Amino acid sequence: MLLDNPAVGTLFQAEAITRARTLLSYFPGGVGAYSDSRGAPGIRQEVADFIEARDGGVPSDPANIFLTDGASPAVKYILNALIRDGRDGILVPIPQYPLYSATIQLAGGQLLGYGLVEADGWGLDVPALRVQAVAARAAGTAVRALVFINPGNPTGQCLPADALADLIKFAYEEKVVLMADEVYQENTYDPARPFVSAKKVLAGLGEPFASSVELVSFHTVSKGSTGECGLRGGYMEAVNILPATMDELYKISSINLCPNTMGQAAVSLMVAGPPAGTEAAKAYEATRSGTIVSYQRRAKAVALAFNACEGVSCNATEGAMYAFPRLNLPPKALAAAKAAGKSPDTWYCLQLVEETGILTVPGSGFGQEPGTFHLRTTILPSEDRLGKMMADFAAFQAKLMDAYRE
Amino acid sequence: MLLDNPAVGTLFQAEAITRARTLLSYFPGGVGAYSDSRGAPGIRQEVADFIEARDGGVPSDPANIFLTDGASPAVKYILNALIRDGRDGILVPIPQYPLYSATIQLAGGQLLGYGLVEADGWGLDVPALRVQAVAARAAGTAVRALVFINPGNPTGQCLPADALADLIKFAYEEKVVLMADEVYQENTYDPARPFVSAKKVLAGLGEPFASSVELVSFHTVSKGSTGECGLRGGYMEAVNILPATMDELYKISSINLCPNTMGQAAVSLMVAGPPAGTEAAKAYEATRSGTIVSYQRRAKAVALAFNACEGVSCNATEGAMYAFPRLNLPPKALAAAKAAGKSPDTWYCLQLVEETGILTVPGSGFGQEPGTFHLRTTILPSEDRLGKMMADFAAFQAKLMDAYRE
Repeated sequence: MLLDNPAVGTLFQAEAITRARTLLSYFPGGVGAYSDSRGAPGIRQEVADFIEARDGGVPSDPANIFLTDGASPAVKYILNALIRDGRDGILVPIPQYPLYSATIQLAGGQLLGYGLVEADGWGLDVPALRVQAVAARAAGTAVRALVFINPGNPTGQCLPADALADLIKFAYEEKVVLMADEVYQENTYDPARPFVSAKKVLAGLGEPFASSVELVSFHTVSKGSTGECGLRGGYMEAVNILPATMDELYKISSINLCPNTMGQAAVSLMVAGPPAGTEAAKAYEATRSGTIVSYQRRAKAVALAFNACEGVSCNATEGAMYAFPRLNLPPKALAAAKAAGKSPDTWYCLQLVEETGILTVPGSGFGQEPGTFHLRTTILPSEDRLGKMMADFAAFQAKLMDAYRE
Repeated sequence: MLLDNPAVGTLFQAEAITRARTLLSYFPGGVGAYSDSRGAPGIRQEVADFIEARDGGVPSDPANIFLTDGASPAVKYILNALIRDGRDGILVPIPQYPLYSATIQLAGGQLLGYGLVEADGWGLDVPALRVQAVAARAAGTAVRALVFINPGNPTGQCLPADALADLIKFAYEEKVVLMADEVYQENTYDPARPFVSAKKVLAGLGEPFASSVELVSFHTVSKGSTGECGLRGGYMEAVNILPATMDELYKISSINLCPNTMGQAAVSLMVAGPPAGTEAAKAYEATRSGTIVSYQRRAKAVALAFNACEGVSCNATEGAMYAFPRLNLPPKALAAAKAAGKSPDTWYCLQLVEETGILTVPGSGFGQEPGTFHLRTTILPSEDRLGKMMADFAAFQAKLMDAYRE
């Protein structure tokens, strides 16, 4: 085996070589062979251990873990399993990550958009959700599931435990599956708003919720401090799903044979770092927390800069990697957009990229309350470039406000 | 960069290091970043070059190449794009690889099974296909596409150029998309039956076919001499597809962000070996042809051994990795299966695995002409184990025939 060659020891630390051997032991046929369609059992066990530790000891069963090629295929498995025909509806937050609208459309279901409350930091309005679910049922739609994204994409909010508890009670009453998009769980920037998993809240609520509300949570190596999005590694944990449905999910996952083995290895590295107390663990933790703290600084700087601009307001990015500022455009600007035959947010983003090179996405790509206009940007530019980017934005916005002021 | 460390040179040959640098140059953000949703442009160019060389110079455009996580997601993209609702039908060979039946069912379409002719070496009956397509249309089904698997899975036949030409003319007349599952194109064992791509035959037919028949071909790193199935690498080439449809395929592929980068790298290695004339090229070609020649011996040995058994007949495995022998079971055996509440092929395969440890799949898992019974086995056991396996099979079959003889 290549790992036995002494030259390997001059290239990699001893802990890394040991880790590679452990990983190889999870793939008895090698990484070039198919694994179990749900992923290598050894890695699914590591994921379950990670979840248990994260949730303060709430048990996690590796039989409920499916490794996947990133989180997107996992979301698609679940939506494909849930949507039978055009009468099935899925509650999806607005603004949303377009994976949901695209997959629901491909699967032939109905997207039931529920608004996040911008004035409440993109929070949930569960009473409004109830009204919406009842109305959808009355109109003949079978409400099958509710998607929530926590921390939010593109909105950046972190849901507190009580909001999650309300959501779980809603799911219990309305008998809908909760789809918890928790891919940004490591990306949190406000100590007052830590990530709390839906599963932990569910366990804490006790019966009748804890053993009956169906919950599927998604995670990935593409975000957090790992950021290895090209490798396509992820997992889902399915809780309280009926055994017959789990069998169907296994069958659906086996159509694609197995998730890619290198992505599985990346999941392993994300959920199980170097052994505690080793030098490698110290170095790893320093890199990890350094990455997150840098994102934290950037998240603050971006919101601050947006809010300093006339005509722009922006909720804090408590988590994830985005800001979704609102553009309060003067009537003359709206008229100019109309004259150009474009929606105001698209008109704005096109001018922004042409004049400054700053590439953003119009809010309409994610959905927004009618009559409001936003753009989405990421907090990912390196810190030495971010200041210049926000200064360029501020100059662009000031010029635009002057040009279209009444 | 790690590759600059001299220790790397003691572990890998110079050609391999150069190749790694080329591969890295295809991923400007590194393999940990998303690539283009259709795959890295440099690798799509290599794939196009490979196809051109394979097809004797018929041009291939990298704009028509989509890299994928193995061939299965590519098949799913196309079926999802083709199937609008339950009135859409897809012609699929019987026996077939179950990816097709499963995906068509998930997409909500109709599987229109067309029989391969066992007595003609699992050949095509294009006149019968015409009758079937006309009947399906008359019954209100929109026939959207025809799938063929060449070399055949699980049937092992290699289609000659004239059969492919008939299929292309059928597709032209009936306006159906041809889905060419050509994942076993490197696995051919009979010099009289080499692999001929549908695209090459299409180009050779000239107009009106060459520029109008819509053809999508699938390939993978999971088969051939590569066999790196766990890495999930593959590609499709889409020919004569309308630009607007290509845009939709691009959009569908982008829902999953990108194919995994390590699988893309594996595709690169499959389609572009070491530079001709180098020592590395010689070693590579020796390994490659040694693998295929070994499969060739195994394919012959398996068919020979099946045909030497009373009550078993088996077409030659001209290509792919399987044999699909027919079990001509005596009436008493059929009665015993019925008494056991099992279909005869399932009853047979269960006994076979219990008595000998040989694991096979009943023909009903792939589809078979009613009243006929088959099993599917692979030719993959190593040569030193294959003789024992076939001897065990022969002893089992002889005992079974004696036990149920009239």
